[in-house]
Amino acid sequence: MTDLASKVRSLLRPEILALSAYHVPDSSGYVKLDAMENPYSWPDDLIEEWLVRLREAQPNRYPDPGCHRLKAKLREAYGVPEEAGLLMGNGSDEIIQIILMALQGRDATILAPEPTFVMYRQVASCLGLKFVGVPLREADFSLDMAAMRAAIETYRPAVIFLAYPNNPTGNLFDPEDVAEILQTAPGLVVLDEAYTAYAGRSFMPRLPEFNRLLVMRTLSKLGLAGLRLGFLAGAKAWIDEFDKIRLPYNINVLTQISTEFAVEKRAIFEAQVGYILQDRQRLHEELSRLPDVHVYRSDANFILFRLLRHDANQVFQRLKDSGILIKNLHSSGGRLAGCLRVTVGMPEENRKFLTALAETLVS
Amino acid sequence: MTDLASKVRSLLRPEILALSAYHVPDSSGYVKLDAMENPYSWPDDLIEEWLVRLREAQPNRYPDPGCHRLKAKLREAYGVPEEAGLLMGNGSDEIIQIILMALQGRDATILAPEPTFVMYRQVASCLGLKFVGVPLREADFSLDMAAMRAAIETYRPAVIFLAYPNNPTGNLFDPEDVAEILQTAPGLVVLDEAYTAYAGRSFMPRLPEFNRLLVMRTLSKLGLAGLRLGFLAGAKAWIDEFDKIRLPYNINVLTQISTEFAVEKRAIFEAQVGYILQDRQRLHEELSRLPDVHVYRSDANFILFRLLRHDANQVFQRLKDSGILIKNLHSSGGRLAGCLRVTVGMPEENRKFLTALAETLVS
Repeated sequence: MTDLASKVRSLLRPEILALSAYHVPDSSGYVKLDAMENPYSWPDDLIEEWLVRLREAQPNRYPDPGCHRLKAKLREAYGVPEEAGLLMGNGSDEIIQIILMALQGRDATILAPEPTFVMYRQVASCLGLKFVGVPLREADFSLDMAAMRAAIETYRPAVIFLAYPNNPTGNLFDPEDVAEILQTAPGLVVLDEAYTAYAGRSFMPRLPEFNRLLVMRTLSKLGLAGLRLGFLAGAKAWIDEFDKIRLPYNINVLTQISTEFAVEKRAIFEAQVGYILQDRQRLHEELSRLPDVHVYRSDANFILFRLLRHDANQVFQRLKDSGILIKNLHSSGGRLAGCLRVTVGMPEENRKFLTALAETLVS
Repeated sequence: MTDLASKVRSLLRPEILALSAYHVPDSSGYVKLDAMENPYSWPDDLIEEWLVRLREAQPNRYPDPGCHRLKAKLREAYGVPEEAGLLMGNGSDEIIQIILMALQGRDATILAPEPTFVMYRQVASCLGLKFVGVPLREADFSLDMAAMRAAIETYRPAVIFLAYPNNPTGNLFDPEDVAEILQTAPGLVVLDEAYTAYAGRSFMPRLPEFNRLLVMRTLSKLGLAGLRLGFLAGAKAWIDEFDKIRLPYNINVLTQISTEFAVEKRAIFEAQVGYILQDRQRLHEELSRLPDVHVYRSDANFILFRLLRHDANQVFQRLKDSGILIKNLHSSGGRLAGCLRVTVGMPEENRKFLTALAETLVS
């Protein structure tokens, strides 16, 4: 081993050295149905109005570190209870990192049902925290409450993450189960409502009931994935502490102006959500008609399905060879063996996907 | 103590609870000479060209996680050696956080001469790491090499931060001293070159000589404070590990497009830097003529000065009452007792500041 390699090993955490670099496949030229993006581009007149708004930016001055105008707009648009505080992040990712950085002690345990959003485990691991995954029920990916109760009792987690609806499975957990977890958890419960626009359900109004509940949101899935704006609502006693760790100018001036603008214009994005919901239903029905495919219920803008007879890796690759990029979850193994995930795209994209998949399954 | 307050205390780090929230004073309406911003707005034709470029943004799609185009432009513009890797952050702040998160063990020590940029200490403290400050020499804020050698020997720091030039003092450390530290330090040495545009010196070309040197840059002081783009250059063996901790989509699409554009147009910002350098010299000369003021040498876009007879708090407040906001460092105490820091503004802003200061000192 060279001197440099041995220095790297002695100074940096073993958990980080053991990680593989995050790999994002090159998607250029594909029908892109892999990343839960809203497929609709901004209308031309919206872009013009946005660019006019951006003229007011002063790129040479530091941004407002408190994001005051943006916070006021988010509060009003998303019904954040008055008594709750708001923490702003570059996507949910930065919010997850802030919450976990704030925890006392290397022995703090993070718990989440699995399969779920991979960044909970990834960030915990980067920070050297212990992560416990509790398997979801095999039949429908609902919470296995007996297993959850036992794990909470055993590990006394500092933070529980619940994605509501869950990714990559697409389902909403039973709100009664979530409420029970909120009542019994010894630490924080982060409800990740990234896909709330497609689910029509939220715990945001119930924040005042539970003082250890934190509701996490992002504007990414609504149609603003490029802007990377996430936020967390919860009791001020928590948010004020997290806000001390937040890097003071983390949200740049372009993000602030652009997300303020987009929140004002949210009716446009909500109309797109309406189209996507209709197309989700159509896609679900047509997928269900294909042979040897089990399709799971979705409350998000993507659909998980399991191949009962075909090799998922091969089907994924055949779709890719036809120019269609979806997400291969088979390689994650466990509960996701045989599973693929498709984002609801524009009608013609969904059609192309269905045609290519049907051809692959019968050939 | 309420149940909630006691839960907050039991779950979160004591270092965070002990921190005061970062306070940014409201600067609206002031002649703003407190934050090391480039005072020149973007010319109108530059804004038009920039907005045309922003039309290519796809706000509904995730940004390029690898920032490939931006990195290529930064490499070419700033002479990053080919063998070095590049890490991208939302400002230097995020880079500092990534480096410190990567360190093994709670007992890792961070070292920096002080006074210096406060975020080194602040981020270390948020992460529960030990921070050792080594006082700079009182006369001219140069490195006290005897003290540095002793501290390095005693604490064996995992990371040493050297701001080059230093903030808030404005001076460049002797490059021979820096080279000695690079040769003897047992861990990483981060050279923070935030103000390099105003100093005309850099260790970037010397990266291949030192495999534990990391050169940190930001575009903020050049004139892009609102965009929050920082980067770190160093041996790939380090950068590849840090890149695993970087949140994969941390740099949003607007920042990528806008900083690519600004780097292409850097001649405009470099011309502004030229004006600021001339005005720095003029401001330095005129400040030096005022009674009972000691003015320190500056290699940055701000000037530190010490009041030898007047109360710095009072002078700061009188300036503020006259509508001029500078930075009061007196309250930091120690080596900075009696010190104020002024950013070089536009000629008429500097004039207003000098007039108000002169009136305050003679009254």
